[in-house]
Amino acid sequence: MSTKPPSGTRDFLPDEVRRREYVMRVVREVYESYGFEPLETPAFENIETLLGKYGEEGNKLIFKILKRGEHEASGEADLALRYDLTVPLARVVAQYQQELPRFFKRYQIQPVWRADRPAKGRFREFYQCDIDAIGSTSPVVEAELLAAVSDVLGRLRFDNFVIRLNHRRALTALLEVAGIEASQHADALVALDKLDKIGPEGVEKELQARGIAPDASAACLRFFAASSPDAAPAEMLDRLRGFVAGHEAGMAAIGDLASIVGLAEVTKAGDRIRIDPSLARGLSYYTGAIMEIAVPDLAGSLGGGGRYDNLVGMFLGRDVPACGFSLGLERIIVVMTERNMFPAKISLGAVDVMVAFLGDGLRADAVKLAGELRGEKLRVEIYPEGSRKLEKSLKYAAGRSVPVMAILGEDEQARGEVTVRDLQTRQQESVSRQSAAAAIARRVRLVEP
Amino acid sequence: MSTKPPSGTRDFLPDEVRRREYVMRVVREVYESYGFEPLETPAFENIETLLGKYGEEGNKLIFKILKRGEHEASGEADLALRYDLTVPLARVVAQYQQELPRFFKRYQIQPVWRADRPAKGRFREFYQCDIDAIGSTSPVVEAELLAAVSDVLGRLRFDNFVIRLNHRRALTALLEVAGIEASQHADALVALDKLDKIGPEGVEKELQARGIAPDASAACLRFFAASSPDAAPAEMLDRLRGFVAGHEAGMAAIGDLASIVGLAEVTKAGDRIRIDPSLARGLSYYTGAIMEIAVPDLAGSLGGGGRYDNLVGMFLGRDVPACGFSLGLERIIVVMTERNMFPAKISLGAVDVMVAFLGDGLRADAVKLAGELRGEKLRVEIYPEGSRKLEKSLKYAAGRSVPVMAILGEDEQARGEVTVRDLQTRQQESVSRQSAAAAIARRVRLVEP
Repeated sequence: MSTKPPSGTRDFLPDEVRRREYVMRVVREVYESYGFEPLETPAFENIETLLGKYGEEGNKLIFKILKRGEHEASGEADLALRYDLTVPLARVVAQYQQELPRFFKRYQIQPVWRADRPAKGRFREFYQCDIDAIGSTSPVVEAELLAAVSDVLGRLRFDNFVIRLNHRRALTALLEVAGIEASQHADALVALDKLDKIGPEGVEKELQARGIAPDASAACLRFFAASSPDAAPAEMLDRLRGFVAGHEAGMAAIGDLASIVGLAEVTKAGDRIRIDPSLARGLSYYTGAIMEIAVPDLAGSLGGGGRYDNLVGMFLGRDVPACGFSLGLERIIVVMTERNMFPAKISLGAVDVMVAFLGDGLRADAVKLAGELRGEKLRVEIYPEGSRKLEKSLKYAAGRSVPVMAILGEDEQARGEVTVRDLQTRQQESVSRQSAAAAIARRVRLVEP
Repeated sequence: MSTKPPSGTRDFLPDEVRRREYVMRVVREVYESYGFEPLETPAFENIETLLGKYGEEGNKLIFKILKRGEHEASGEADLALRYDLTVPLARVVAQYQQELPRFFKRYQIQPVWRADRPAKGRFREFYQCDIDAIGSTSPVVEAELLAAVSDVLGRLRFDNFVIRLNHRRALTALLEVAGIEASQHADALVALDKLDKIGPEGVEKELQARGIAPDASAACLRFFAASSPDAAPAEMLDRLRGFVAGHEAGMAAIGDLASIVGLAEVTKAGDRIRIDPSLARGLSYYTGAIMEIAVPDLAGSLGGGGRYDNLVGMFLGRDVPACGFSLGLERIIVVMTERNMFPAKISLGAVDVMVAFLGDGLRADAVKLAGELRGEKLRVEIYPEGSRKLEKSLKYAAGRSVPVMAILGEDEQARGEVTVRDLQTRQQESVSRQSAAAAIARRVRLVEP
């Protein structure tokens, strides 16, 4: 029998859990400071809640749970594992509308499961960290989401990320003005999305291969090819206005973008924002602003989101405005690990003091001293096997990066003392048994600043 | 389409998440102070990892995941949802033996899933909080587990719990000495377990109905009926010794129990321990001490555990000693909620200050002030919709139990001021815009001590 975790999943041993917990703690603290509140939903949903929400490709990647008992043999599924945190949120908003505040702001940090082919950095079980604000169409919502995400990344010491911002309706206007038919917008976006990879000529070829008229394709490319990814937002907004002038919905969308940029300017997102008219985002449910975080020298994004004013309506029967952002926790952890961005204290040992006893007669006093040391707010482990030989426990404690060892021996006991050993300097001293806990606590605080 | 969570599962809205987080934080802090380290394993395991580990009944309650893609139509399952935290631990110990410390002490707080019929307090998705210590047969292990669990319950303000302690091999000895054949031990234990419900006569009838010889049954009952559940451990140990005297393995087991009691006496578990010779615990993998926590006026236990020196061997091929305890998080939360045991601060509002702006021209300054207030470590929400009428936002803030509101209006702006309103006393004052954040922070700290 294999003892590995299932394909695409991971066991997290203690050091890894601590690194993950550190990131989640920062995320949680920052999101709470923006007034987001925690929500948790079940790992599985009724299968009809999920089916049809993620497109045809998504449907195939959903983990389905067999019916139980006598129905198991039917081979049918009635439940499915959570695929993202947005659809469960929409269900929750519909179910608890009477109990939730009108402007419900929630964060949710939970795993999701997708039956993707496992690859480097792509897992079948991975955590998502989502914030969503329900109930308002105000651009304050987008600005605050971007500020919160920037705040998180700043505290995690990401110092060179960029926020790419676009608007679904501006994008539609742009394609319409260029003369691309509505039925071809999806095709056009797939091609345009490759601009920085295959260049304008490559995109032109692909647009034509997808049956888009040459003059429409040329009009489009003229706009995109001349757009610099580093241009200031105000300049890009002007270029957009120039291109879609006269397209009412498009101008309104650009006005919306301008409001978001203007508000975000006074936040931690301020100088991070770039208007990127080629940003499309895969999911079909976006209806307004869309955004993505990019980091230099990293393919793909650290997270993304946008406004989706119709999704809750699929559950509730009437539309409720909503806007959200999902941080890519797994990618953040990969980048932080590779780039050595974790604070040193995360990888310090789990134990402040190890208590060793030389012979079973001293066992009870070891347990007692451990309790006293915990009273001093120390993390204490007892080397569980008493032996007259100290080497084994010393070696073990050193391997576990324990800074201080408290040793209870018969000679010490006879003198009413405890030996305290600094495992780094290998110096040791005797302290009175009665005041041992306080003395050891002082020493640990010296060693672990 | 139903918007309820699937049968037997729950959505946790913010207040409930906060209560759960509070309990888990206490559990985590205490367990870390005993040197336990965090472990996390995937939500699902390869199905063969779980099958055959939980008995026939358990097998039926495992949620199974359909194969994917072309194999979906086969109706077969290759994965299954985690059923407890012990079997995954045993797999992890076998897989990472080279990396883990010799005395691996881990805590794990994760959900498990069981396809039980949902009932009051019985869920299909529920959290377990487990501690396990691997690698030592020392009674220090049991004593420290009991101390840690008692410490958790003490900090959660459970002040009248009792630890029931027994030993699998003492129990076996007891039944052997009474003359019950090995093949009938399981039957006998089921009957004896009902002693406090159906009394000695009821148990005697049931023992005989199960085919146990009358004199064996009488010998057994003489011992159990005379045992007081409140007797001091030393007295019960003496009674046990008297009964199994001459049974070598039984005497060794009682010696083991005596060591555990002696060590636990100097810990927070000290005066909680009762030796209960009728405690059996359902799971078949226990090999030594077994324990359970009981609270007056509560049917069932708050958690239980024991020593299982053979389970890791099912994965590793050689036995490794192990002992663990699982706290019933869901029951703890139910009891704490019913008995009003949560500290008041848990249910305080999620937001310290709400920023309101009277008109869109003040929107950017609202976003800016919110940022300044977050710099003062406050949790800040912006009422997202500017309006010249204040009532709506005041009512909303009061409904969300926000203590303080910062109001940005045109008059205030002209004077370079911000209005700060205490939403409890309804008193308000003007502060200068420049020093508004610091002034508001001082006020919030006055209101929220």
